[in-house]
Amino acid sequence: MRVCTALILGVFLQAFGGNPEARSQNATSLPLMPLPLHVVQGEGQLKIDGGFSITLEGYKDARLESVRKRFLSTLSRQTGIPYHNESTSGEPTLVVKTAGASDALQSLGENESYHLEITSTHALLTAPNPLGAMHGLQTFLQLVSITPEGFSAPAVTIDDEPRFPWRGLMIDSGRHFQPLDVIERNLDGMEAVKLNVFHWHLSDDQGFRAESKVYPLLTGKGSNGLFYTQTEMREVVEYARDRGIRVVPEFDMPCHTTAWFAGYPDLASGKGPYKIETHWGVFDPAMDPTQESTFEFIGKFIGEMTTIFPDGYFHVGGDECNGKEWDANPRIKTYMREHGLKDNAALQSYFTTRVQKLVTAHHRIMEGWDEVLGPETPKDVVIQSWRGPKSLAAAARQGNRGLLSTGYYVDLNQSAAEHYLADPLAGDGASLTPEEKKRVLGGEAAMWSEFTTPEIIDSRVWPRTAAIAERLWSPQDVRDVNSMYMRMAAVSNKLEAYGLKHQSFTRPMLQRMSGQADPKYLAVLGGLVQPPVGYQRGSLKEYDWHTPLNHLVDAVPPESETARKFNNLVNAIVAGKASPEQFQKAKESLTAWRDNDAKLESSLKMSDITAELVPLSQSVSQIATIGLRALDDLQNHRAPDAATTQNDTQVLKAAEKPQAVLRNMIVAPVEMLVQAAGTQKP
Amino acid sequence: MRVCTALILGVFLQAFGGNPEARSQNATSLPLMPLPLHVVQGEGQLKIDGGFSITLEGYKDARLESVRKRFLSTLSRQTGIPYHNESTSGEPTLVVKTAGASDALQSLGENESYHLEITSTHALLTAPNPLGAMHGLQTFLQLVSITPEGFSAPAVTIDDEPRFPWRGLMIDSGRHFQPLDVIERNLDGMEAVKLNVFHWHLSDDQGFRAESKVYPLLTGKGSNGLFYTQTEMREVVEYARDRGIRVVPEFDMPCHTTAWFAGYPDLASGKGPYKIETHWGVFDPAMDPTQESTFEFIGKFIGEMTTIFPDGYFHVGGDECNGKEWDANPRIKTYMREHGLKDNAALQSYFTTRVQKLVTAHHRIMEGWDEVLGPETPKDVVIQSWRGPKSLAAAARQGNRGLLSTGYYVDLNQSAAEHYLADPLAGDGASLTPEEKKRVLGGEAAMWSEFTTPEIIDSRVWPRTAAIAERLWSPQDVRDVNSMYMRMAAVSNKLEAYGLKHQSFTRPMLQRMSGQADPKYLAVLGGLVQPPVGYQRGSLKEYDWHTPLNHLVDAVPPESETARKFNNLVNAIVAGKASPEQFQKAKESLTAWRDNDAKLESSLKMSDITAELVPLSQSVSQIATIGLRALDDLQNHRAPDAATTQNDTQVLKAAEKPQAVLRNMIVAPVEMLVQAAGTQKP
Repeated sequence: MRVCTALILGVFLQAFGGNPEARSQNATSLPLMPLPLHVVQGEGQLKIDGGFSITLEGYKDARLESVRKRFLSTLSRQTGIPYHNESTSGEPTLVVKTAGASDALQSLGENESYHLEITSTHALLTAPNPLGAMHGLQTFLQLVSITPEGFSAPAVTIDDEPRFPWRGLMIDSGRHFQPLDVIERNLDGMEAVKLNVFHWHLSDDQGFRAESKVYPLLTGKGSNGLFYTQTEMREVVEYARDRGIRVVPEFDMPCHTTAWFAGYPDLASGKGPYKIETHWGVFDPAMDPTQESTFEFIGKFIGEMTTIFPDGYFHVGGDECNGKEWDANPRIKTYMREHGLKDNAALQSYFTTRVQKLVTAHHRIMEGWDEVLGPETPKDVVIQSWRGPKSLAAAARQGNRGLLSTGYYVDLNQSAAEHYLADPLAGDGASLTPEEKKRVLGGEAAMWSEFTTPEIIDSRVWPRTAAIAERLWSPQDVRDVNSMYMRMAAVSNKLEAYGLKHQSFTRPMLQRMSGQADPKYLAVLGGLVQPPVGYQRGSLKEYDWHTPLNHLVDAVPPESETARKFNNLVNAIVAGKASPEQFQKAKESLTAWRDNDAKLESSLKMSDITAELVPLSQSVSQIATIGLRALDDLQNHRAPDAATTQNDTQVLKAAEKPQAVLRNMIVAPVEMLVQAAGTQKP
Repeated sequence: MRVCTALILGVFLQAFGGNPEARSQNATSLPLMPLPLHVVQGEGQLKIDGGFSITLEGYKDARLESVRKRFLSTLSRQTGIPYHNESTSGEPTLVVKTAGASDALQSLGENESYHLEITSTHALLTAPNPLGAMHGLQTFLQLVSITPEGFSAPAVTIDDEPRFPWRGLMIDSGRHFQPLDVIERNLDGMEAVKLNVFHWHLSDDQGFRAESKVYPLLTGKGSNGLFYTQTEMREVVEYARDRGIRVVPEFDMPCHTTAWFAGYPDLASGKGPYKIETHWGVFDPAMDPTQESTFEFIGKFIGEMTTIFPDGYFHVGGDECNGKEWDANPRIKTYMREHGLKDNAALQSYFTTRVQKLVTAHHRIMEGWDEVLGPETPKDVVIQSWRGPKSLAAAARQGNRGLLSTGYYVDLNQSAAEHYLADPLAGDGASLTPEEKKRVLGGEAAMWSEFTTPEIIDSRVWPRTAAIAERLWSPQDVRDVNSMYMRMAAVSNKLEAYGLKHQSFTRPMLQRMSGQADPKYLAVLGGLVQPPVGYQRGSLKEYDWHTPLNHLVDAVPPESETARKFNNLVNAIVAGKASPEQFQKAKESLTAWRDNDAKLESSLKMSDITAELVPLSQSVSQIATIGLRALDDLQNHRAPDAATTQNDTQVLKAAEKPQAVLRNMIVAPVEMLVQAAGTQKP
């Protein structure tokens, strides 16, 4: 039986009976993310025990051999079964047949397909090149789970290939420096979900993070000592290549460039002196496009960086120029007049054109944010859209290729579902011609780092970026949010096992802020709150580079699993579809939340970091109390008097406002309960 | 007021009111381990906020500068406050005044003292050399905790120096290879508790782990690819030196040498062929002491290793020769007769004497296990005792220096209290003359690795090794076990924050074995059990190198904190000193444990790894039920009938036997309850 993805989804959901908890216990499920193009489920399962072995056949190279070893070591970590890289005697369990080599330098649009066949006795993975083989091995690893018969992978036949050729993750190392181990474990995560471009944002107003030997003051005065050496950047390129990932460096210009100017003020349009910015936001400093020396500098610098980053694409930023330094410099104003540059946009366009030539001279294709696109922009320039699908579609119509990042800003604390449903070909993109559509290369999750440190970053990237990875890999019609959440939970556990810390980061932070070895009541509170979405956080409290990110808002994931599940439960209840068990579950949850404050309050006051949570904890208790009453009314089909409903609604309204820079996530579902209880027919 | 350690302990205990939970909330406590020699508590506390800074005065060198940076980075991790290595303007918070340099090569018995003075406005650390400065900084870090006024260190004056000059941790990289990051994070842990010798067991029957360029087959055929390159070993030496830690390599000979013979069978006394051992135990292969070529090989090898390990001491093992290969080799028997070597002990003594000359020729002092000591042993040879204080005292009487490892085998799953109370100068050591006592250099925790993998090892070493570190650093009369457990809990949290995984390792292992994202009921069961102590584990199930260490016995710490606390509670109850709250607490615990099986059982059967726990989980429930009944009888002063007591006792007796290679740790306290209930006066 050959079935398409949509059918498999049905099977999967049926197997779980809609109950996410059942997932991990069901060996016939397919906890895959991204979901493959075609799947046929077979009978039985392949046992993964101490006798498991893997062999390479066909094309072989050093990278594939290291992929094989790494596969065994990951499988070992995933099962606890030791595989000592021993040569196998007898028939191998998994044979990987690779037809030929990949491109010497991984290129955009290379074949990434694979075919994976697992039976109850053997597994065969075939791929045209090592890229496909790597993807297939990650699929295999995702299929391995514990069963009553031990670790095993279900019998299955998979034919798979990506929808888009550019599937990226951007990490901003400028605002908060992220050490090498953070970068590397995130590359591991990218490999696990088949992302293939690491976009490295290496400079910004707050720091220049890439060592230049030609211009040593870039980091010497622009980095506060926190930067990557050339050796380290080469290591990252190599590390990424071993995982089928291209590395595209970004050096943002002509704005977001304060850090350049700390060491080289002559590049700037203003008078200086400059030092690296310690605040967040959009700043005035901008490169001076009217001096030839600026382009000489940029040209040499790009030349140096291309010796480190071999990828065919080079990102020059180009976003968020406010033009103030240009306006304030009479020499620049004169230059603009003399050269017929009618406004700052024209000036930036002139700058971009010059830079594009420098990039091309070094055999790279230029990439930039929306702003680099003008009517005259050469057609090979790739546009990364942060303004939305509309500008992406406009670029495609104009003949430029582009990728979407709007909707994929993982620093903004949106839900996985929101990211998941954002499609590069939705909205304006839907009306593109087939040829124009081909110009939409894919997308990139963007991890801006104002509010993230090395201990927090994994939780902002994962597991939600796995949902984005699925959007970019799987067919466009794969968009069942419930299925996504179920599979994302499975992959999230795997990612944590591979070394990411997006689950485990919370506990040590709670211990630190509370001084308690087992801060269990604080954890309950933490499970019910979320950081504010969008750019609201910066308006609630003053933040800069020195502000410790050690509060509860920093220690909780962007999306509360507890609140999401409770929300689902409440949906069932208000729809009148809830079983008595579901009513009971909701009641138990609300009771625990109501009673949590009494256990937590005194300890909150023992730390100046948690003291701010006292009103929030009280509010949670109050909201839960209201929820319990509404639940009781609903269960007993008893309408409360209007005054009660009105009063409750007011309290809830007030609780919608963030407290301690946190959103109380039980407010919305309790509002639903109150609303439903109040509108019951008597 | 100047007080001695014993007094401070009293103050500390008083502050906590005997309640360990209160610890972290009490800013006036001293969560220090090892406890310093002299402490005077002051008034107030020093605030540690974003303005904190540290300066070096007096003697300076590159190591001290890197110590300063590392201190800031650790403090940052410990508080979540960013310290960007910025140069400070204004008066520094902490001044470190170092009088002079340490020895170019860290030597045994170097001054390690320091003086630390913290007031509410400043801190001053003075030390004769960088070693003392490093120790003082670790003390400072331990003093930092969260308070209602923010992070702070209490005002205090400390004068400190160690009791013993040799305070070590041995890690066996032979049986289970431990990668570099494991070694390095354990060195971080050692630094935190002022241990100063890393004893690296680099070869054994199961693997040769040190790259030799002179004899490449040592790892080529004897390591299965898992070994340290020379560059990596040099990195470890450097890493350790940066933390005030000497590295003493051990190459065990003439036995425990199968891995040598895999590549160089001519060294052996038997016929071979040899391949590395995959089982645990004591094996027959032994070097051939009758061939000159053996000593030529050893001499060259030691020469090569001394270029990597600069320390003045070199460990040649020497333990557990069973002599079987010697007995079976007629040529060796003839040699023994001809050279008047009356037995295998004499033959080994001859071997040791020859090896000692080779070690001396390379300007190293030889160290070996008990067995290397004979009547003729040169007086500079250092004896590491695994047989007990008696042999250590005998060595000291004979004029040899030695150190204790008996009682410090952390792989044997004994309690922290047992390790803590083992003293190098107890037993026979107590009757040594002062001069003989000086020959007892200290001791070493020993981490043998049959039952540990990189994911488990931290939990076997920590936090119990912190208690051993205190034994070796603090005055002999510091031996209050309750105080030790309280302070160890605080230091344990810090160690986890520094990167060790002895607390966090459990959860991912439970997730893996159960396939559940939140295996909370399995965690309850895991909290009540312990691995068997001593060498019992190997007799309960067959283990070798291929056996996955992925069961519950591997995932729980060697000492159950829950069981230990419950035991204390029961002690209070049977002593008739329990408050109603304590009765209530015991009842709640027992109720939760009784009810856990019903919630856990079905999920246990979903995994072949947890299926073996079904009877254990049932047994815990049954024992808790008995405990509840006994508790009720005690609370109501009602004696059960004799038949009930007898029946319960039988059930308890049966439950003492390990199940699923695990000890049920609530059996003993429930036995106490049953006993107490049954012997009540009617």
